[in-house]
Amino acid sequence: MDALILLTNDDGIHAEGLFALNAALASLGRVVVVAPDRPRSASGHSITLHKPLRIAKVKMPGGGEWYSTTGTPSDCVLLAVHEILRRRPDLVVSGINDGPNLGWDLTYSGTVAAAMEGAIIGAQAMAISLVNTGNHPEWDYGLASEFALRVASLLLREPLPPHVFLNINVPMPPDKRLRGVMLTHQGIRRYPGRIEKRVDPAGRVYYWLGGDVPEDRLEPGSDVEAVSKGYVSITPIHLDLTNYALLEQLKSSPGFAKLLENC
Amino acid sequence: MDALILLTNDDGIHAEGLFALNAALASLGRVVVVAPDRPRSASGHSITLHKPLRIAKVKMPGGGEWYSTTGTPSDCVLLAVHEILRRRPDLVVSGINDGPNLGWDLTYSGTVAAAMEGAIIGAQAMAISLVNTGNHPEWDYGLASEFALRVASLLLREPLPPHVFLNINVPMPPDKRLRGVMLTHQGIRRYPGRIEKRVDPAGRVYYWLGGDVPEDRLEPGSDVEAVSKGYVSITPIHLDLTNYALLEQLKSSPGFAKLLENC
Repeated sequence: MDALILLTNDDGIHAEGLFALNAALASLGRVVVVAPDRPRSASGHSITLHKPLRIAKVKMPGGGEWYSTTGTPSDCVLLAVHEILRRRPDLVVSGINDGPNLGWDLTYSGTVAAAMEGAIIGAQAMAISLVNTGNHPEWDYGLASEFALRVASLLLREPLPPHVFLNINVPMPPDKRLRGVMLTHQGIRRYPGRIEKRVDPAGRVYYWLGGDVPEDRLEPGSDVEAVSKGYVSITPIHLDLTNYALLEQLKSSPGFAKLLENC
Repeated sequence: MDALILLTNDDGIHAEGLFALNAALASLGRVVVVAPDRPRSASGHSITLHKPLRIAKVKMPGGGEWYSTTGTPSDCVLLAVHEILRRRPDLVVSGINDGPNLGWDLTYSGTVAAAMEGAIIGAQAMAISLVNTGNHPEWDYGLASEFALRVASLLLREPLPPHVFLNINVPMPPDKRLRGVMLTHQGIRRYPGRIEKRVDPAGRVYYWLGGDVPEDRLEPGSDVEAVSKGYVSITPIHLDLTNYALLEQLKSSPGFAKLLENC
């Protein structure tokens, strides 16, 4: 195979998960990395319209094609396609993220957003995240990058329909053996929301978001459940956020019927 | 009714669409505005984890409760709930956005993301956007804010199930009469992607994203189609991005079967 593969992430160009992915996918073709110049976790599917962006060619030990940008993960995909590669890559891989992208995480995730941008431009795409369940002091990207290679080869051989992508979460078992792989749906994981109020040296108040522990609902067949049991989860994702069941319900709701009539 | 209503947007606290919404919803209860201190269009469902945030109480002609924050629209909702209001509002309304949020726009939109955050915290929520179809030099928020009031009262009287929200687009007809209202699904609208390369005064290259014209697919029953015909579109949105049809297909795909087995 002689594929053109674009790698990006939301942890920034100096993230080990990106190094591991770059090494693992080299056998599949030409691999080009275009990643944010600093961590951009929870950047969602944001693109930068209000300020200019820069691209820098970066040298890395071991060689390869590395570019950093001042933009978000989605900006990186757009800059890669329209400026750096000047063509659509065959595959966009985003990750390996330091931490899970499960349930409602997907809506916030910069990692997932970059794969989404890959799907929008019509490339094969996947987001891959490493779940350090036991809070090991060392992150081991070995199993996740091996698995990324297997899925990447499959997507290049047997492409998915356009404008969908895969969201993959790989647990990090203590014995380095995965329990298995499950095809899952996106589950429910939310954060209670923690905001810390602090005072700066000048006496002015500021706030930090984050630091809270997610609340997971272990629905059978969901990504959240699969990973909690030590399985890799693979969820096929599209761009349609419509709640079709509710759409049908609202069509027969008297309140909405009145709203639709009186205009 | 004595509802607590949180308003926000992605165009920033000095946007006329926000003023119109604030005036229109005042009759429903206590209205509190918590909005970004500057335009944050296309900020997606991003939250700010890498730097601290500030909140400022803002005075506005005509009074009312106004706060600006240095965060994204989603940050605004979180800061409102956990710090400013210190309770969950009954309703979160995001808008009135200057411009459409149709089709794949939804994944990038800060306006939609704020309503999504409202749905996540368990409030009733809606995003509302004004579509200036004919590029009128003046934006007229009158019909859209009247419509926002009608939908807001309906949601307070007859709440939707938790963790869903409405995405509403209101066209701006030349004769100031809406054609009608349609319950829609999210359609397909993408951007070809335009990046302008420029050179700064120091001779260094930089890039601007944006400025391209969307490519709409006029699927029957979609938001894109409804608005193109002069109708208001209302799309019920949830947080589940799973492509269930593809999930079933992959379960019977030989390539994926092999992937699931060999672990």
